[in-house]
Amino acid sequence: MDPLVDDRTGQRTVAETAARRPENRYGNRPTMKDVAARAGVGLKTVSRVVNGEPGVTPDTERRVQEAIDALGFRRNDSARVLRKGRTASIGLVLEDLADPFYGPLSRAVEEVARAHGALLINGSSAEDPDREQELVLALCARRVDGLVVIPAGDDHRYLEPEIAAGVATVFVDRPAGKIDADVVLSDSFGGARDGVAHLIAHGHRRIGFIGDQPRIHTAIERLRGYRAAMEDADIPVDEAWVSLGVTDPERVRVAAETMLSGPEPVTAVFAGNNRVTVTVVRVLAALDRPVALVGFDDIELADLLDPGVTVVAQDAAQLGRTAAERLFRQLDGASEAPERVELPTRLIQRGSGELPPADR
Amino acid sequence: MDPLVDDRTGQRTVAETAARRPENRYGNRPTMKDVAARAGVGLKTVSRVVNGEPGVTPDTERRVQEAIDALGFRRNDSARVLRKGRTASIGLVLEDLADPFYGPLSRAVEEVARAHGALLINGSSAEDPDREQELVLALCARRVDGLVVIPAGDDHRYLEPEIAAGVATVFVDRPAGKIDADVVLSDSFGGARDGVAHLIAHGHRRIGFIGDQPRIHTAIERLRGYRAAMEDADIPVDEAWVSLGVTDPERVRVAAETMLSGPEPVTAVFAGNNRVTVTVVRVLAALDRPVALVGFDDIELADLLDPGVTVVAQDAAQLGRTAAERLFRQLDGASEAPERVELPTRLIQRGSGELPPADR
Repeated sequence: MDPLVDDRTGQRTVAETAARRPENRYGNRPTMKDVAARAGVGLKTVSRVVNGEPGVTPDTERRVQEAIDALGFRRNDSARVLRKGRTASIGLVLEDLADPFYGPLSRAVEEVARAHGALLINGSSAEDPDREQELVLALCARRVDGLVVIPAGDDHRYLEPEIAAGVATVFVDRPAGKIDADVVLSDSFGGARDGVAHLIAHGHRRIGFIGDQPRIHTAIERLRGYRAAMEDADIPVDEAWVSLGVTDPERVRVAAETMLSGPEPVTAVFAGNNRVTVTVVRVLAALDRPVALVGFDDIELADLLDPGVTVVAQDAAQLGRTAAERLFRQLDGASEAPERVELPTRLIQRGSGELPPADR
Repeated sequence: MDPLVDDRTGQRTVAETAARRPENRYGNRPTMKDVAARAGVGLKTVSRVVNGEPGVTPDTERRVQEAIDALGFRRNDSARVLRKGRTASIGLVLEDLADPFYGPLSRAVEEVARAHGALLINGSSAEDPDREQELVLALCARRVDGLVVIPAGDDHRYLEPEIAAGVATVFVDRPAGKIDADVVLSDSFGGARDGVAHLIAHGHRRIGFIGDQPRIHTAIERLRGYRAAMEDADIPVDEAWVSLGVTDPERVRVAAETMLSGPEPVTAVFAGNNRVTVTVVRVLAALDRPVALVGFDDIELADLLDPGVTVVAQDAAQLGRTAAERLFRQLDGASEAPERVELPTRLIQRGSGELPPADR
């Protein structure tokens, strides 16, 4: 038996344990000392049981195991290769394996994990909250020591028993829903506001916004940034200029072509993420007039296009690194209160965002 | 206890079992019937034990479990959610999380997995054979039902006990080393030969080849394609035109600049993969003369560059889909002999590969 998780009773035991002991939460985890006290044995005995070392009678082992189960104790020593050749591991739940934004983020998480002697295991929610939950719990059942989650859903209370059982958890790119957890974000609101203000400064007033689905935190924050910049410049937003939805090329193409047609077309577009930007670049390349563009997220080869694509760049690697480092601080036993870390964005001017309105 | 893997003895038991029974290999796996015969019980009893159903005495359960251990039996029913809420899962081992080539491949594997009711768990070897092995075994220890592996190493005998224990395995992008296993590849040799022949057809004779590290199968195959095309055209290859190595921008930039300088510079470059291509595009954009370029792998926005980048495109999604479908055929009990599937590549002409030699 692995002493960390009771295979016979599994996750349900942990959940029940957490329900019985609401005070037993992240930041206030049971320690080996608590286990020793409850089992009425010495710390060394608990250590022997936890590490599978000899010298413990079956009866004592059973008592220690019962105390471990009752307290929801879980050893959180991530850096050590556990007995039976099991390597420490952390899980990363992404939303789309094919989105290049997550490449540098994943690699950064992996590098931090490796520096701590842990393996990284990834999975994708494909932007489906049920699938996110299924994947997160599957990774927990496979005994990851910690989780970095880019959430698809907005209710993460299902994670509470796992967190109570000692699974370190950090959310990244989007906040957790209905639980108090560490989160590392880019400043989506501020970045979008700056990008739109940049277009306004170059003379645009009819500015389109094409973003991701409205249930996604970053889409809403960036739209909020767009509206703030327009309001700061006293420009009333025509709702025909705003389009939120899935970021597949067809939807984005139709949205862009719609706001670029008619008697009063937009003269500039703010693209809400990298998937939107690459489609808008294609739409604009087929037009016979210049239309300004600022995109949220940098894209590969953006500087070699004509005009170069002006972007509000996030530091995806830094997001991943920051999240992973917080995770390992949790695993190393730091009992800091959950924090929200917001990383700044950076406007990179390359030409497309500096074009004046074509119809002036 | 999960009946599929003995947690107390773990992997070592499986390995020893396989060593004792060399005939017990992929394609000739022990079945429930074998377990029933060895334990001297009926098939229904084995099924009850394997599925954790009631109605089996502890003594019988022990006998069945011993037969399972001795035979290395492993239930390979991937599509079913196992007891205790454990979901079927397959593992995918990539070489680089940040390489966009693997995005569509991963997503295709995930889609096939989902269609079979299984979760996909990813990990990256970061092109390190030891890390590949560590990750593969860690995924096996976490009870994946099957593995899709893009190998970093060239000796996969470490996988034999896992395969014997019923872990379905398909290699993709590069073949397995020293074991007989399913593999799904692109035609790297033929694709590179066609791409280089295309440059020769446009008048080039001094053609550079910049590829990945020589221990990587695809790098060698593509170089072989380059040499074949040159030989077909009776063009002796100057070894100063050939550069293999890591694909980081600095190494590739120096390699490109070296072969583009001197009294007899190359007039065309064949880039061995997408990472090489994006750097060569940058180097060529800074030159004052046109140099032709064909890249292996398509890259996003290649059509919008000036000139558009001519590429030999692989169908990364089709690679992933084909590999995953073979994996699930294995899991569904098909006992086909391991096969090598080679998918064709496609030359996409966009301008850069059709430029004539600048020094003519």
